[in-house]
Amino acid sequence: MTNIQYSPVTVLGLGAMGRALAVRFVTAGVPTTVWNRTPGRDAEAAAAGAVPAATAGAAARGGELIVTVLLDHASVHETLDPIAAELAGKQWLNLTSTSPEQSRELAAWAAARGIDFLDGGIMAVPAMIGGPGSSILYSGSDSVFQAQRQTLELLGSAEYFGSDPGLAALWDFALLSSMYAMFGGFFQGAALMGTAGVTASEFATRATAWVAAMTQSLPAFAKIIDGGDYTADVFQDLVFTKSALDALRGAAADAGVTFEPLGGLAALVDRQIEAGHGADAFERTVEELRATTSSRR
Amino acid sequence: MTNIQYSPVTVLGLGAMGRALAVRFVTAGVPTTVWNRTPGRDAEAAAAGAVPAATAGAAARGGELIVTVLLDHASVHETLDPIAAELAGKQWLNLTSTSPEQSRELAAWAAARGIDFLDGGIMAVPAMIGGPGSSILYSGSDSVFQAQRQTLELLGSAEYFGSDPGLAALWDFALLSSMYAMFGGFFQGAALMGTAGVTASEFATRATAWVAAMTQSLPAFAKIIDGGDYTADVFQDLVFTKSALDALRGAAADAGVTFEPLGGLAALVDRQIEAGHGADAFERTVEELRATTSSRR
Ligand SMILES: NC(=O)c1ccc[n+]([C@@H]2O[C@H](COP(=O)([O-])OP(=O)(O)OC[C@H]3O[C@@H](n4cnc5c(N)ncnc54)[C@H](OP(=O)(O)O)[C@@H]3O)[C@@H](O)[C@H]2O)c1
Ligand SMILES: NC(=O)c1ccc[n+]([C@@H]2O[C@H](COP(=O)([O-])OP(=O)(O)OC[C@H]3O[C@@H](n4cnc5c(N)ncnc54)[C@H](OP(=O)(O)O)[C@@H]3O)[C@@H](O)[C@H]2O)c1
Repeated sequence: MTNIQYSPVTVLGLGAMGRALAVRFVTAGVPTTVWNRTPGRDAEAAAAGAVPAATAGAAARGGELIVTVLLDHASVHETLDPIAAELAGKQWLNLTSTSPEQSRELAAWAAARGIDFLDGGIMAVPAMIGGPGSSILYSGSDSVFQAQRQTLELLGSAEYFGSDPGLAALWDFALLSSMYAMFGGFFQGAALMGTAGVTASEFATRATAWVAAMTQSLPAFAKIIDGGDYTADVFQDLVFTKSALDALRGAAADAGVTFEPLGGLAALVDRQIEAGHGADAFERTVEELRATTSSRR
Repeated sequence: MTNIQYSPVTVLGLGAMGRALAVRFVTAGVPTTVWNRTPGRDAEAAAAGAVPAATAGAAARGGELIVTVLLDHASVHETLDPIAAELAGKQWLNLTSTSPEQSRELAAWAAARGIDFLDGGIMAVPAMIGGPGSSILYSGSDSVFQAQRQTLELLGSAEYFGSDPGLAALWDFALLSSMYAMFGGFFQGAALMGTAGVTASEFATRATAWVAAMTQSLPAFAKIIDGGDYTADVFQDLVFTKSALDALRGAAADAGVTFEPLGGLAALVDRQIEAGHGADAFERTVEELRATTSSRR
């Protein structure tokens, strides 16, 4: 299947994602040991050729690279704290979704125990693992990333963002934030069109093309944000943006649809105008997001 | 320049968009009369070959197709009410951004005065007019659309959505809602990455590709919405969505960034879970948008 000599991997956690990762490793010829808290969930991975282990500790002894794919930060500690001694000297890749702060905490915990820690953010769903659209963002230990690069590339494109173990998670969260907001906007549009008897599918055909085309504006927005001058060469100012958003709000109200997916953005725009920035560029909104006090979070 | 015989057009309003339209018409060989409330703003169109008129009434006499490109609904009435008699028997295309209800009001006003009314929503900025990316959505009088189709296609792709004069505006507003929400998500992501010293431009490179790729999910979302069953074959349920959004909110708080661009979507998700729909598909959110009472708008 391949001439590459992969070092043995242990996958802890066989939920939907853990199973996809384990099956992909095994199928590619990686010696793979698997464990799941609830027994019986290792059947798929075992059938593909993975070695099931009865305990997390036993599983950890089977791998040089230990991969955690658990529910959350707490479940990672619950699973690894009792077996920290087994992990000393090993390489650990955490693919559990954890926040940047939580990833940094795991890195510190690992460092104190002689474990080499790499964090990863999976930008894919289980069915995509190993396929062309799959991408995983990494940060933390450069040595783990370099040593395991070929193994990591079995899962999808592998990119390393630097030694800050929180950076991959930050990228993950920033991209997911963009995605969810876009989804909210699609729902808003679909609800509006539905009031005129237009199906969501008819709307989606156009919305997909339109929103994808509009993402082409983002690099120009970014240039203004990075330049830091929101007063020169203003293409769309905040007052114009407010009138556009007010019109959208009014049309939603006329149609009996809530404006909530856009309400937060509108509030940010209003606040900047109240503070005297009405003639500034729409892109200034990034500053307002950063400047907001905790009471408004 | 062309062998097509265009009927004469009058452009009322020479702001950024009106100027672009007038110049495009004239350049393509359309006999074009122009007027603007504040004098002196017709220089660019006149230089291109348009005939300037001193009053809106005089301008209207010059065209068979009257195009309004004014600020808003009120400015359209302010301009046309005094010259309604000049417009009887003519074709009127309103390209001023008006809400669906306002477009329907203009249509009724026009019908009562023997004016044939077509509404249009411009999905382009002035610099794009006449170029490949420019698209205008039309609804209202089918006869105006058919008679003027070649003239309309000078501006960009021309699509007719039906006789309801509010439909083009509804499409316009629904697409703009999707766009602004997506922009809000980009700002959220850029603000988050900025806290780790990543430039907005670095973020934009990835966010553009990622968000555009994620728009490919919209037709599948739409299928579920149109099916109306949010309990079968649930790919991502509302409880999962809540935990994802809560994680994003937490990471934003850790980074000192507000969560407002996503706050409305999160509230919609929370409300559905409180109402017992936690196991339903994320796409159910469209129903919640429609169901929301006016107190929540
Ligand atoms: N699925 C995706 O599309 C996707 C995409 C990107 C990232 N991720 C991330 O990948 C991780 C796993 O996702 P998934 O889809 O595989 O989730 P899942 O199907 O819900 O599986 C969760 C896994 O975590 C285990 N677990 C939960 N609490 C535990 C505890 N206290 N101690 C030990 N094990 C525990 C579960 O074991 P039991 O069987 O014993 O409950 C199960 O193996 C999550 O962090 C998720 O955010 C998933
Ligand atoms: N620009 C775009 O990217 C874009 C895109 C899509 C749709 N649109 C729509 O196109 C329309 C025009 O936009 P624009 O960019 O050209 O705006 P603009 O540059 O601000 O121009 C506004 C025009 O409206 C006129 N006006 C305002 N109030 C008036 C009144 N009470 N009576 C008569 N005339 C009045 C102004 O005349 P004065 O010179 O006398 O003030 C000016 O000609 C708007 O509805 C806008 O939403 C614009």
